[in-house]
Amino acid sequence: MSVLPLKIGMIGLGVVGTGVAKLLSEQQERLTKKAGRLLVLKKVAVRDASKSRDISLDGPVITNHWEDVVNDSSLDVVVELAGGTTWTKDAILGSLSSGKHIVTANKALLATHGKEVFDCARKNNRCVAFEASVAGGIPIIGALTQGLAANKIIGIRGILNGTCNFILTSMSETGGSYQDALKEAQKLGFAESDPTMDVDGTDTAHKLAILVQIAFGQTIPLASIDRVGISSLNSIDIHFARELGYGIKLLAEAWIYDGKLAVHVSPVLLRRHSPLAQVRQAYNAIQVMGDAVGDTLYYGLGAGRMPTASSVVADIIDIAVGRAQSTFNSMNLWSDSGNSSPLLSSDDVNSRYYLRLLVDDKPGVLADVTKLLAKHQISIASIIQHEAEGENTNGKVQLVIMTHLSKCGKFRVAAQELDFLDCVSGKAVHYPVED
Amino acid sequence: MSVLPLKIGMIGLGVVGTGVAKLLSEQQERLTKKAGRLLVLKKVAVRDASKSRDISLDGPVITNHWEDVVNDSSLDVVVELAGGTTWTKDAILGSLSSGKHIVTANKALLATHGKEVFDCARKNNRCVAFEASVAGGIPIIGALTQGLAANKIIGIRGILNGTCNFILTSMSETGGSYQDALKEAQKLGFAESDPTMDVDGTDTAHKLAILVQIAFGQTIPLASIDRVGISSLNSIDIHFARELGYGIKLLAEAWIYDGKLAVHVSPVLLRRHSPLAQVRQAYNAIQVMGDAVGDTLYYGLGAGRMPTASSVVADIIDIAVGRAQSTFNSMNLWSDSGNSSPLLSSDDVNSRYYLRLLVDDKPGVLADVTKLLAKHQISIASIIQHEAEGENTNGKVQLVIMTHLSKCGKFRVAAQELDFLDCVSGKAVHYPVED
Repeated sequence: MSVLPLKIGMIGLGVVGTGVAKLLSEQQERLTKKAGRLLVLKKVAVRDASKSRDISLDGPVITNHWEDVVNDSSLDVVVELAGGTTWTKDAILGSLSSGKHIVTANKALLATHGKEVFDCARKNNRCVAFEASVAGGIPIIGALTQGLAANKIIGIRGILNGTCNFILTSMSETGGSYQDALKEAQKLGFAESDPTMDVDGTDTAHKLAILVQIAFGQTIPLASIDRVGISSLNSIDIHFARELGYGIKLLAEAWIYDGKLAVHVSPVLLRRHSPLAQVRQAYNAIQVMGDAVGDTLYYGLGAGRMPTASSVVADIIDIAVGRAQSTFNSMNLWSDSGNSSPLLSSDDVNSRYYLRLLVDDKPGVLADVTKLLAKHQISIASIIQHEAEGENTNGKVQLVIMTHLSKCGKFRVAAQELDFLDCVSGKAVHYPVED
Repeated sequence: MSVLPLKIGMIGLGVVGTGVAKLLSEQQERLTKKAGRLLVLKKVAVRDASKSRDISLDGPVITNHWEDVVNDSSLDVVVELAGGTTWTKDAILGSLSSGKHIVTANKALLATHGKEVFDCARKNNRCVAFEASVAGGIPIIGALTQGLAANKIIGIRGILNGTCNFILTSMSETGGSYQDALKEAQKLGFAESDPTMDVDGTDTAHKLAILVQIAFGQTIPLASIDRVGISSLNSIDIHFARELGYGIKLLAEAWIYDGKLAVHVSPVLLRRHSPLAQVRQAYNAIQVMGDAVGDTLYYGLGAGRMPTASSVVADIIDIAVGRAQSTFNSMNLWSDSGNSSPLLSSDDVNSRYYLRLLVDDKPGVLADVTKLLAKHQISIASIIQHEAEGENTNGKVQLVIMTHLSKCGKFRVAAQELDFLDCVSGKAVHYPVED
């Protein structure tokens, strides 16, 4: 065991960076024991060195220039927590090229430039550790790379965005609208002032791309991930889902079907007793199905200062003891050597569906709708139409149909045709349904 | 990366051993890729080499003598899956002394002779990997040693015995008796013909001792684990628990309270929406609370051929890439160097309680019972007494009381005194209550 201290540089001192600095300074004795050597934060690059912070940093040198960290030849590891895909890519590539290991939480960068980053690391015989990039404090990267290493992974599905799950929990438990739930999430610090990347499913897709890389050894372009977010979700659908015994969750899914890899990000109706349906508030959870282990699940906080710092510091310890290097070498991630499965077109995905239509409250409507579905060989599993109540229904009622399994492509065509029926107002609303 | 194959010996070819042999032979190409080298099963010691098995073993040499594996100097690793604490201890110590790494699923041996085994490994510069010893396929050892390495663990609670959880699920969902549920579990292969070690909590205590060692770095004698099993559990208590919004689970718990370590194994009433209360059938789950990461949970199959083999082979891969050795050295488990917390006496544990009494259906009974509880400063949170129905009640009714927090010692004294009240028949039944 090396007795030399591990010298750490950090780029970014925001929410997570502050947590990492806190852990390294306040828990030094405990962490030294775990790592077998001292972990020393030597230099930190920040946007504004003069800003006051809720942490006293008398140890490390503070600089306004990320280049000062990258060019410091005394450092063993650079922890990148600035995010983004522009200059941070240069900072990471520069650090690797000058012989430093990388610890990063930057899912956007790995999802879009993973190959370049990992090739650069291999070329320089350094490693990239990224436990914090997916699901914050949950050690899912370690589970996939090590604990489940004996398995061929059959499927993954996860709740990977705490903001969305907080909003969905709030809509479900208060009956309120998406806008109200978003406002509450922003007030409590669970959503950013511009929540676009979270609520439109982009952040979830970034994390899914990383999970697919590790679980299936396959690089998928972000554009190939069929993506639906939660911002247009209507509370009435959450209400109907509950009536049917389901909850709605934003799921990232990747699974092998008929030798092909299917991936998507979508709100999904999950049976209420499914473990993922139970995940509330800002928690994340990932279900991993392996050929040997069967069904496993990992649950915890997917964001926030200390949970994410927990994963960053675990990666630092892994580098200090030399484990991260072994994992990096043996996994061979983002290399071209894999035996990739072709992607399954979303048209060919089999799924049950929830379908909601606003229809005229008059004779013959149900006949028109069911005839159209029958034409596309879509079989109905259950149906809800409540009596129209009150005076503001304008002669319209909500019609909710749960289908049996159907090919997604066929179902979408049927849904589009339904929009053109005279008895249907507005657009058909539909989501996949799972157990 | 070494290009030499990893040569493996195995002792025991029962349920799990067969699974390991299957994985190693049928998934050779995939595992070689993960490990960076060939994993070759060279020799297997069995009880009866002439027995027919549902696996073809043309690769390895089969022997009736475990000594043949221990004394084979060509082997790099010995996988011990025979169980027990007598000759298997000699086999493990012998293998380590002759320079082989150990992979084992033997919780009983680690819980009772962990120190001797680990000291021997350290002396011989070899490692012991034991992911399969706790919770079968769930990578909980890896999560604690690596993924959560940055955390001070505050508490652990888990469902660690699939047999018990299967029985409890069956009792809860069918309303049947313990005996009926046990018979069903035996019929389906979820319980052994002699289920004593499972249902009396011994197996759960073994696993808890291992988790405590890893999470708190502390060796606890098995005798210090307060242990209640499920064999005397009455279905009426499951019924009342459900009425109150709770499920009953056999939990292993260890947590830090006031600088002391509290541990116990007991049936516990868990609020129905608690993640652990949702764990059904033979599944296991472990909740781990860390100071940085907060609340995390790991879920999967805790026993069975392929789930357990999944963890055994993950350990073999970890040894092949050199990770297990780094982990073993840095963790320093079962060494005397730790700063142990004193054990909290079970008398000093604070808990809410479920209390059921069979009482006379006559005036003054409730006054007598509540007066006695008040004398011991035990405060009542809720109470259930249904009207006596039918003719077989003999003038008795069930009285169920949920208490507020009380010291366990104080509560036990009160429960014993209740048994002596004239209006109380038989013994008071009580279990801890948690969220």
